[in-house]
Amino acid sequence: MDALLYWVGMSAVAVNALTGVLDSGRKQMDLIGALLVAVATALGGGTVRDLLLDRNVFWVVDQTYLMAALGTGLVAFFVVRSFSLPPRLFLIPDAIGLALFTIIGTQIALQWNTPWLAASLMGVITGVVGGVLRDILCNDVPSIFLKGELYATAAWLGALALIGLQEIGVTPVNAAWAAMGIVLVLRLLALRFSLTLPALGQAR
Amino acid sequence: MDALLYWVGMSAVAVNALTGVLDSGRKQMDLIGALLVAVATALGGGTVRDLLLDRNVFWVVDQTYLMAALGTGLVAFFVVRSFSLPPRLFLIPDAIGLALFTIIGTQIALQWNTPWLAASLMGVITGVVGGVLRDILCNDVPSIFLKGELYATAAWLGALALIGLQEIGVTPVNAAWAAMGIVLVLRLLALRFSLTLPALGQAR
Amino acid sequence: MDALLYWVGMSAVAVNALTGVLDSGRKQMDLIGALLVAVATALGGGTVRDLLLDRNVFWVVDQTYLMAALGTGLVAFFVVRSFSLPPRLFLIPDAIGLALFTIIGTQIALQWNTPWLAASLMGVITGVVGGVLRDILCNDVPSIFLKGELYATAAWLGALALIGLQEIGVTPVNAAWAAMGIVLVLRLLALRFSLTLPALGQAR
Repeated sequence: MDALLYWVGMSAVAVNALTGVLDSGRKQMDLIGALLVAVATALGGGTVRDLLLDRNVFWVVDQTYLMAALGTGLVAFFVVRSFSLPPRLFLIPDAIGLALFTIIGTQIALQWNTPWLAASLMGVITGVVGGVLRDILCNDVPSIFLKGELYATAAWLGALALIGLQEIGVTPVNAAWAAMGIVLVLRLLALRFSLTLPALGQAR
Repeated sequence: MDALLYWVGMSAVAVNALTGVLDSGRKQMDLIGALLVAVATALGGGTVRDLLLDRNVFWVVDQTYLMAALGTGLVAFFVVRSFSLPPRLFLIPDAIGLALFTIIGTQIALQWNTPWLAASLMGVITGVVGGVLRDILCNDVPSIFLKGELYATAAWLGALALIGLQEIGVTPVNAAWAAMGIVLVLRLLALRFSLTLPALGQAR
Repeated sequence: MDALLYWVGMSAVAVNALTGVLDSGRKQMDLIGALLVAVATALGGGTVRDLLLDRNVFWVVDQTYLMAALGTGLVAFFVVRSFSLPPRLFLIPDAIGLALFTIIGTQIALQWNTPWLAASLMGVITGVVGGVLRDILCNDVPSIFLKGELYATAAWLGALALIGLQEIGVTPVNAAWAAMGIVLVLRLLALRFSLTLPALGQAR
């Protein structure tokens, strides 16, 4: 289980690094700029979680994560330069990355004896802060907050489901699968059918 | 005294959550986006202070703060959607929140044996970082830095007054009242009379 | 050696505070706003490094750094208001500040038993995060990521050189001089000859 989580986390890091490179392409960044945005996107969420929980930061302890982010970013940089890829191609890996990070983040917070609501927020933070950092570094309004994405929403519901299922006696592994399914399905349904939550459109 | 500070802190959290929701309304955020901006606005300053002082982060230890931020944000979201409220209505609660956070942050830093100038900056950070995060997440230039607000200025003078008064023998409670008055009066005078500090208008 | 590093660090703080004030001039910030941007620019990189390494934050332990940042910012503010200075004047001190911060940050991370690649990133973070914070607070795309600056690139190569040279037996002091030279020369050559790395210009 721990080995599975490890490789799952590594894959999520790689996927997020990829989205960082894709986004930096719109801002005329050079190779090192794009790699640093990739690293911030891939490792940002887990880093903030570790700081908030006062854990040792995961990629300082085990720099394999850093290597995965840099390696993926490097390959992605040259692929993106050479081929024109449809942006929609990455929405499914991105949704998988969101689901993985959210579940891992919530589970780590629970192991660290964080109270339930704060633990669910740690899951959301692990899942979305990387993307928020990417958008801030590229000087955009963070897209996860915008209407019609259900990005943070899917993460939060998944995190709460993970906690609730374990509370009523479901095993951690089964709860993790169910919660990951919830995040993925919600996110993909939102993309497919343009689901929206109420928004503050015309306020003011 | 400690119980008083606790409830005072809780109220400041609620007020800041409110301003977060108001601001997110200008950016087409959905419910969860607005709630996350509310949480960042309400808890951001104290979180950065706790990280810098290497304390346990206050809302991870006691998630009542998180509940207060989310609850206020939720109510504010639906009120703002239903009624058109004049933005100026919130300037006074906002000034009270600034004063409370600044005093609490400075006092905690002093208890943590932080040297005086760094402690005063911890007060400013506790008071203003939430608003800075809110403005960054909404992709604005942080308003506290702009000319003609005296926002950070009021906080800093209040924090320095709190430290100075205790240094010359005033009791912590009396010093806190005086410092809070200084923050409030300066901020409200600035709003009323458009007070300004020298600014770097045309440089470059 | 330690006394040298201390004063070198202090000078780098002062130089970075200066660039913070210069940048805030373009955004109509008032005196306190400009000073806070100066503090964030000067102390931001080392602060993030200390948080990631779980060290005590350097300016909370020794507030002389904070005083240096504020003092330089204050003087710079009034000089900039009174005289029109060519921005290019500050590129050389800025490059020196980058070199100093990068070397100090990498060395501290190595002393803290950080693995090599993570340690080199700590050097980059110490060198560039202050400038990134400055650009975010002023709502610009962080310039270090943009094409044609070789800013982060110079820092990273210098950090890697510092680690590699010590690995093959060069003394820390000599390795530090060599690495500092690499950062400076690369950065100044980039400015002089508009060197560029491959960039993601037209992607998408």
